[in-house]
Amino acid sequence: MQRYLLKIAYDGTNYHGWQVQQNAVSVQFVLQNAMEKLLLVRPNLTGCSRTDAGVHAREFYCHFDLSKIIPCEGIVKGLNSVLSEDIRVNDCKMVESDFHSRYSAKAKEYIYTIDNSLICSPFNSKYVYHYSGEINKNNMQLFCNKIVGEHDFVGFSSAKRSTEDTVRTIYSCNVISDGNLIKIKIVGNGFLYNMVRIIAGTALGFATGRFNIDQAEEIINSKDRSLAGNTLPAKGLILNKVYYTGELNDAQL
Amino acid sequence: MQRYLLKIAYDGTNYHGWQVQQNAVSVQFVLQNAMEKLLLVRPNLTGCSRTDAGVHAREFYCHFDLSKIIPCEGIVKGLNSVLSEDIRVNDCKMVESDFHSRYSAKAKEYIYTIDNSLICSPFNSKYVYHYSGEINKNNMQLFCNKIVGEHDFVGFSSAKRSTEDTVRTIYSCNVISDGNLIKIKIVGNGFLYNMVRIIAGTALGFATGRFNIDQAEEIINSKDRSLAGNTLPAKGLILNKVYYTGELNDAQL
Repeated sequence: MQRYLLKIAYDGTNYHGWQVQQNAVSVQFVLQNAMEKLLLVRPNLTGCSRTDAGVHAREFYCHFDLSKIIPCEGIVKGLNSVLSEDIRVNDCKMVESDFHSRYSAKAKEYIYTIDNSLICSPFNSKYVYHYSGEINKNNMQLFCNKIVGEHDFVGFSSAKRSTEDTVRTIYSCNVISDGNLIKIKIVGNGFLYNMVRIIAGTALGFATGRFNIDQAEEIINSKDRSLAGNTLPAKGLILNKVYYTGELNDAQL
Repeated sequence: MQRYLLKIAYDGTNYHGWQVQQNAVSVQFVLQNAMEKLLLVRPNLTGCSRTDAGVHAREFYCHFDLSKIIPCEGIVKGLNSVLSEDIRVNDCKMVESDFHSRYSAKAKEYIYTIDNSLICSPFNSKYVYHYSGEINKNNMQLFCNKIVGEHDFVGFSSAKRSTEDTVRTIYSCNVISDGNLIKIKIVGNGFLYNMVRIIAGTALGFATGRFNIDQAEEIINSKDRSLAGNTLPAKGLILNKVYYTGELNDAQL
């Protein structure tokens, strides 16, 4: 068996997240359909992350095994010719059989984008959360500084989470201005269900005066979901980058 | 009667152009529905241009008359609360009754965007024409220089055009690189049906070696549609700006 790794990107607007599920069209489902059409077998795809419905990915990895060797270039071209334009395969690579798109990932980088314009551009609306009120970016960054490091993020996760271990390490969390767009860029070794969207909503709470910056540590340490901010909408979130180590990282796949 | 002028923007993906027509949803139709809902009358909207199905607008103007005075701020807020996010009203202004969104316009600026990446980003695909082959931007600009000035553009228009006078003046036509995106920015006093899309397709013909730069004047002067390039897809085209004079221009509406 040969293991293949795909690097894809997708606009999540029309998909119910990555993972295959009943009665909803997911990216995994559509990609598996395309592979079946192309390869005449239906490989099981394992993704690096379960993105929620409506979340986007600029860089997403998934792997699959095939009993035969197929040139990677053909897989990329073939899949792109079959897929709709909102999912693109940007690369394909043969990897060792112990490489795992999810478990081999050392870190992930998400960006949450808030559009602070008075009126949201129709060209942005599917990729941002629109908030036209006053935003104190300084307070937002102060809160973001506090979440860097190892914390139990149970208070920043949805009850729907599937994991028992809720400790994660955030390597960086920065507020970046880009015109009227405010981007929260967060890199961590893993993220709980809805965690980035709740962190973004809490950061917005600090930015708008709902929370005072003195409360930051209390909210983080409380592990109490009800003390944190709102879960911002999925459409503002994008999985921007996945960090692997070793061969893959060197190859800058 | 008071005349009002709206400044709007729209993502044309889901619309059959600006103009109301049978059996197809247009921007004008949707906007008139929203106005009827809001104002309880259905004003007749006159647009600055008839954009084709799928063409976008970053700046589009339309005017209408009302027998009563309604605060413009309320019209903007009200319409945006009723419209879907792919159409936004960015401004509203009361204007003199002889002001006309179309006839008072002195010039329009369109941008046609070609994505020259090997693989098109799923976030761009609704706003670009994807062409992954080699592009000679220099030849593209040389052709663009030739179309500046007053010409009979009948050879750069679709047979569906509704006008007899096919002479137009192009004030500028520039090729702008933005990463892998190549933008043709064209300003003129008016444009025939499909004219920008045919100019973009002809420019691409010069960029890819289909046409030799020596042929530029011949193609332009021939007034023969069959000698010009392809009509590129609507989705790559955006009405970027409308130039008015006098009060409106001063006000930078």
